[in-house]
Amino acid sequence: MRAVLKFGGSSVQNLDLMKEVAQTIIEKKNTYNELVVVLSAMGKTTNSLIKMAKDITKYPNKRDVDLLISTGEVVSIALLSIMLNDMGYKSIALTGEKAGILTKGTHTKNKISSIDTRRVEAHIQAGNIVIVAGFQGFNEAGEVTTLGRGGSDTTAIALAAKLGAICEIYTDVSGIYGVDPRIYPDAQKLTQIDYEEMKEMAFLGANIMEPRSIDIAQNYGVTVYVTSLKNPLEGTYIKEYKQNMEDKKITGIAVTEKVVMVSIRRIPYSTKITAELFKDLALNEVNIDVINQNPSVGGTINIAFTAHADDLDAVNEVLDKFEAKNPTIQVLKVNEVVKVSIVGSAMRSQSGIAAEVFELFAENDLEVKLVTTSEISISYTFDNKYKNKVVEVLAKHFNV
Amino acid sequence: MRAVLKFGGSSVQNLDLMKEVAQTIIEKKNTYNELVVVLSAMGKTTNSLIKMAKDITKYPNKRDVDLLISTGEVVSIALLSIMLNDMGYKSIALTGEKAGILTKGTHTKNKISSIDTRRVEAHIQAGNIVIVAGFQGFNEAGEVTTLGRGGSDTTAIALAAKLGAICEIYTDVSGIYGVDPRIYPDAQKLTQIDYEEMKEMAFLGANIMEPRSIDIAQNYGVTVYVTSLKNPLEGTYIKEYKQNMEDKKITGIAVTEKVVMVSIRRIPYSTKITAELFKDLALNEVNIDVINQNPSVGGTINIAFTAHADDLDAVNEVLDKFEAKNPTIQVLKVNEVVKVSIVGSAMRSQSGIAAEVFELFAENDLEVKLVTTSEISISYTFDNKYKNKVVEVLAKHFNV
Repeated sequence: MRAVLKFGGSSVQNLDLMKEVAQTIIEKKNTYNELVVVLSAMGKTTNSLIKMAKDITKYPNKRDVDLLISTGEVVSIALLSIMLNDMGYKSIALTGEKAGILTKGTHTKNKISSIDTRRVEAHIQAGNIVIVAGFQGFNEAGEVTTLGRGGSDTTAIALAAKLGAICEIYTDVSGIYGVDPRIYPDAQKLTQIDYEEMKEMAFLGANIMEPRSIDIAQNYGVTVYVTSLKNPLEGTYIKEYKQNMEDKKITGIAVTEKVVMVSIRRIPYSTKITAELFKDLALNEVNIDVINQNPSVGGTINIAFTAHADDLDAVNEVLDKFEAKNPTIQVLKVNEVVKVSIVGSAMRSQSGIAAEVFELFAENDLEVKLVTTSEISISYTFDNKYKNKVVEVLAKHFNV
Repeated sequence: MRAVLKFGGSSVQNLDLMKEVAQTIIEKKNTYNELVVVLSAMGKTTNSLIKMAKDITKYPNKRDVDLLISTGEVVSIALLSIMLNDMGYKSIALTGEKAGILTKGTHTKNKISSIDTRRVEAHIQAGNIVIVAGFQGFNEAGEVTTLGRGGSDTTAIALAAKLGAICEIYTDVSGIYGVDPRIYPDAQKLTQIDYEEMKEMAFLGANIMEPRSIDIAQNYGVTVYVTSLKNPLEGTYIKEYKQNMEDKKITGIAVTEKVVMVSIRRIPYSTKITAELFKDLALNEVNIDVINQNPSVGGTINIAFTAHADDLDAVNEVLDKFEAKNPTIQVLKVNEVVKVSIVGSAMRSQSGIAAEVFELFAENDLEVKLVTTSEISISYTFDNKYKNKVVEVLAKHFNV
C-alpha cells in the first residue's frame, strides 16, 4: 500500500511543528509501506520571498520569481529529510524537477503536463521515504516553474495518481465543513463529499483545495483524505459515491472573501471591444469569476465582473490600457464584495431551490448584487457587510 | 572581452546593496561586452540555514544540508536577475547545476570536476548577463552539492578559466593587504601579488580567498582582480609576475585566528596508531594544519596539531573514538591559539630570515608554541594574547 502525504505551510512553519509532521509520517509507516511526502514552504516563506521581489519592482520578471519562490519548498524538504534521517529513517529530498514534474504555461502559474516517476520509484524501491517539494516543477526549457495557488495539493494528487496511491492532505482545519466554521461556528463537518461537489465548493471559494487538484483526483480516481495533525481520524474523504434520495439539498456553502468587483459603464456596444477586454485579462492570467453584462442607454452596455483580489495588479494593468484605448468608458472598482454560494449534487434533480433562496433573502432584507448559477451551485454576490447574516440564514435553512 | 564578476555575501546582504551591485555590473558593460556574474548568498543566510539544520541534530545528513544551503545563492541570483531585468538589461539566473558545474567528493565539501559551459555560452550569445549561483554544483548522482569555504570564489575562477575571462572578485576589503588592517592599521595594500604568494597567504589564514581557487587561477592562467565596490580602481591583481632583486623579503603576514590546538600525550609509539588518527581526521574532512610530533618518556610520543575551529565537531568526534580505543593517552585541547605567518616568494633565494625572526621574538619576549616552514613561508603559533604584539613587531620590521 502506498500513500502520498501532503503537509501545508502552517504544518511545517517551525521545527517543533515539523517534528510532529515527522512523527506522523513514521506512524503512517505502520499503515502504508511506501510513502511519498509532499511539503509546502514553511509558514509565510513564499509571501516573504514575493515581497522581496515586489520591493524591487511592481512587476518582477516571472521566470526569476519562480526560481526565487521555489527555494521555499526546498528548505522544507531538506530540513524534514535531515529530521527523518536523524530519527533513523532513510529518506531522500527531491525538488520538483528531480521528482520529474514537467510543466507548461506561464511562469508562476504553470500546469503539470506529465510526471516521470522513475527517480521517485527507484528511491521508493531503495526503501526511502521520498520527500518531494510541492508547488514546483520544470518546463521544457529546463527552467524552474511553480504551479500557482494550491500548487502543493496539485503536486500531491498528481503524484498519487501516477503512483497509484491514496492521497492524504494535512491542513489547518480537520476536514471539509459544510460552511467555513470561522464564519459560522455551528458548521458541520462532512465525512465524505464527491468530486463534483468538492470542485464546486473549491471553485466557489472554499479555500481548502484548488479545484484543478480535485479535477486530477476525479480523472484518475484518486481517493483524497483531508484531515489535520490534531484530529487525523476525523477527516473528510473526497471520492465518488452514490447520492441517496434522502440526501440534503445542499452539501455546503462556499464563501469567497477577497473579491474585487469591477463595473464598467458606457462600453460602446461591440462584441469586439468586450472580447478584447476579456482576452487581455486572460492573457494576464486573471481568473475572471462572475460576469454580468446588461444593456445601457444610448447604444452602450455595462459590464460587471469579479476576480480574486490577488490578481488586482494584473486587473489594474489591463483596465488602465482599456481605459486609455476607450476614453468614453467609466470604470468603477469595488474591492469589498463577498460571494456566497450554495452547492449540492442533489440540485441536479431538485428544482425550486433558487426561488426558495430568493425568498429567504427577501425575508431578511439581504440585497443581492450579482447572481450566477451552475449545474450544482448558485452564487450570490453581496456587499461585504451582509456576509455573516447571509451565511447564517443559509446555513440554518439548509442545515449545513 | 569577457569577465566573470563575483560578489560576496556582504555585497548583497540587502536590496539596497544589491542595487549597487547591479549598477556596478551595468557600468562594467562598458568595459566588457560579455559578463558572467557569480553571487554568494545574502549576508548570513548560509549560517542561518546551517543553524536550522543543527537545531535538528548535531550531525545533520550532509546530502540534505547541501540541498538546504544551496537555496541561499538561488535567492540571490533570482533577486539580482529581477533587478537587472527591471533596469532593462536581459539577464538569466542559473543554479550551479544549470551552469553545468559538475562536482565530486563529500557533500558540503565537494570539488569541481568539470564545467559544461554550453548553456552559459548559449545565454551569453543570446545577449544575456548570466548570473550563476556560487558555491554549488551537482554530482554524478544528480544531487545538489556545495563547495565548502570560499566556494563562490572557486565557482567564479573556474568559470573564468573555462570561459577565457578575467575574474574580478568584489569583497569587503578593497584589495589584498600585506597584513590584515583590522589587526595592524598601518598595513599597506599591494598592487599585485603572485599566485604562489597569494596561495601561501590564503592557506595560512588570510581570509580573503581560498587557496584552491588561487590554484585554479594559477593552473589556467586566470588574472584575478580583488577589489571592493567602494574603491573599485584600487584593487590588487593576482597574477604571475617576475620578482625584482630589490623586492622586499616579505610580501605579507597572514594571521589565522580561529585555531584549535590539540595536544595528545602518551601515545604508544607505533606509526600504525598515529596513522590511524590522521586517517580518521582526513576521512572526517578535517584539514589538519601544523603537526608536531616529539618523543616522550617511556616509549610513548606526544603529538600536537592545529585545525580550523569550524572543524571542531569533526575533531571531537574523531578524538572521542581515539580516546576510547587508546585509554592510556591524554588529550588536551586549546581553543585559543593564533598562527602568524610571514610569506614572500623572495624567501626562496634569501636565507637567514628564520634567524632574524627568532631574534625579534626573543627581544620582545614573545613565546612561540609551534613553528613550521614551507618554501616561501614560516608560521609561528602563539597564545592568543600575543597576537597584536607579534603582528606589530613583524609588520614594522619587514615594512608590510
